[in-house]
Amino acid sequence: MADKKVVLGIDIGGTGIKFGLVNRDGKILFSDKVKTKGYPKPDPLPADLKKRIAPVLKEQQLELAGVGIGSPNGNYFDGTIDHAPNLPWKGLIPLKDYFKKAFRKPVALTNDAKAAAIGEMYFGAAKGCKNYLFITLGTGLGSGVIVNGQLVYGHDSLAGELGHVIVYRNGRLCGCGRKGCIEQYASATGIVKTYYELLRNKSIDKFRLSLGNMLDAEMICDMAMKDDEIAQEAFYRTGWILGFHLANSVCYTRPEKIFLFGGLAQAGDLLFEPVKNSFEEHLMPIYQGKIPILPSGLKESEAAILGAASLIWDEIKD
Amino acid sequence: MADKKVVLGIDIGGTGIKFGLVNRDGKILFSDKVKTKGYPKPDPLPADLKKRIAPVLKEQQLELAGVGIGSPNGNYFDGTIDHAPNLPWKGLIPLKDYFKKAFRKPVALTNDAKAAAIGEMYFGAAKGCKNYLFITLGTGLGSGVIVNGQLVYGHDSLAGELGHVIVYRNGRLCGCGRKGCIEQYASATGIVKTYYELLRNKSIDKFRLSLGNMLDAEMICDMAMKDDEIAQEAFYRTGWILGFHLANSVCYTRPEKIFLFGGLAQAGDLLFEPVKNSFEEHLMPIYQGKIPILPSGLKESEAAILGAASLIWDEIKD
Repeated sequence: MADKKVVLGIDIGGTGIKFGLVNRDGKILFSDKVKTKGYPKPDPLPADLKKRIAPVLKEQQLELAGVGIGSPNGNYFDGTIDHAPNLPWKGLIPLKDYFKKAFRKPVALTNDAKAAAIGEMYFGAAKGCKNYLFITLGTGLGSGVIVNGQLVYGHDSLAGELGHVIVYRNGRLCGCGRKGCIEQYASATGIVKTYYELLRNKSIDKFRLSLGNMLDAEMICDMAMKDDEIAQEAFYRTGWILGFHLANSVCYTRPEKIFLFGGLAQAGDLLFEPVKNSFEEHLMPIYQGKIPILPSGLKESEAAILGAASLIWDEIKD
Repeated sequence: MADKKVVLGIDIGGTGIKFGLVNRDGKILFSDKVKTKGYPKPDPLPADLKKRIAPVLKEQQLELAGVGIGSPNGNYFDGTIDHAPNLPWKGLIPLKDYFKKAFRKPVALTNDAKAAAIGEMYFGAAKGCKNYLFITLGTGLGSGVIVNGQLVYGHDSLAGELGHVIVYRNGRLCGCGRKGCIEQYASATGIVKTYYELLRNKSIDKFRLSLGNMLDAEMICDMAMKDDEIAQEAFYRTGWILGFHLANSVCYTRPEKIFLFGGLAQAGDLLFEPVKNSFEEHLMPIYQGKIPILPSGLKESEAAILGAASLIWDEIKD
């Protein structure tokens, strides 16, 4: 008889809350979403989601093994969402408790990048890999550090902030309040800033014209594919500084592999080529030629729910 | 009845090989040393040391639980010393095998900084601390990264090379062949270079005079204590860049504490004050004010043997 256990994976975002039932093989048997602004307070969320999945569980004769939640500023140790700037819920939100009370099943909560990092091990390209870095290149640069098959949470669940390593002292102002963090350069936001900088240096007229356009990383990617030299240069610079940062990062935990995920990683060789070249150039000789940088094996559309669900599959391994 | 188990801790250095019998409480019951150049080949070393400790074991009725070895370029996974430039033994030396054959007891081998990092947990100031960074400031900058109470070896036992994070692109040439590694700045060697740079910039005459003197870090420390402004400035700059590096390092594993060990750390406030100031200044706000930087609790003279011995106490915990 097939294993009928599933986990409810929930991905909490600024605009939408996606959720799905995920089996042990990483198949999403059902998924849906609700609007975040429909929940000015998070209290009614668990009961609502319970109601939404109840008929599915019954119909497909599934057994719910637990609830995994990925959220901005999710704190794994405390089970809380801590002062997430993009959510309507202010302060410390004990979301894990709310879900435990409603579901009476194991519940785990962590931040979205960390959830996806574990998802990579269960359902992506990191199967069987015990030491790796997972980097998500979205609005910011998120990350998960895996050592000996376990995500590193550190002393207070706030390990793995690789986006906030300073690579340019007195560089671009970062959302964290400091200057020069790598996520201001190697991220969807970062490449747009780099593009505008280059444009302004090379052609002040085009720069002025472009200001009305509100470019994003995807548009810069399209332009680079169409041989726009400034867009290509922006990718080169983004890849170069990311490769440098990853080379330094290897010194800490000596990963076997490094995975890149998120919008910017979809640009393929445009990004990967300069990343890899700069990585090898800056790598300590004892590591050179030994550490592949690979695209994530998770589908962009599924990663968040799979990642959230994998938190529970990770806790109830056997 | 008292526990009569002891571990043979061995510290292999370029000039001397120190060894000692260490009990579970970190007491060194016996210690001695031999000259490294007395062993152009390492093969006879295990039998010789066995002979040296045999009468002590018998007399004090001690039971040998294993052999722990700390060595430059010691590889924990392979049990080998890999191409150590400062030892007379060239190529790959399977030292763990030699000792296993001679002693027929558990044997563990790792590099000296990693051994001392574990020693800090068993016999030093990191008792009960599960997440910390251990930094040794000697000729270079060595380190051990502890996560969840375990030393991070990474994929091939070469994790924890925090001395080779590049902090100045195109900076000082490093022994690893690259430029700008932190250990060229924050180490006994580094502070001497900084001192000479400052001296040359400020007074070319004094600089010329000083060239005959062969200053070392200890002398610079003495000079700084005696209000030599250039020596003080050298400490300030060394501490500043180390504090910056440690602030970035926190982003990876979020340690509870950071320990500084080795000659340069003996300078006390001269070093710790600028390190701490720069650390807090560069730290991501979520970490600020939460992570103490502390002197190691290991005695300089005992650390190497205690660290080596702790490898075995770590393996046979119960």
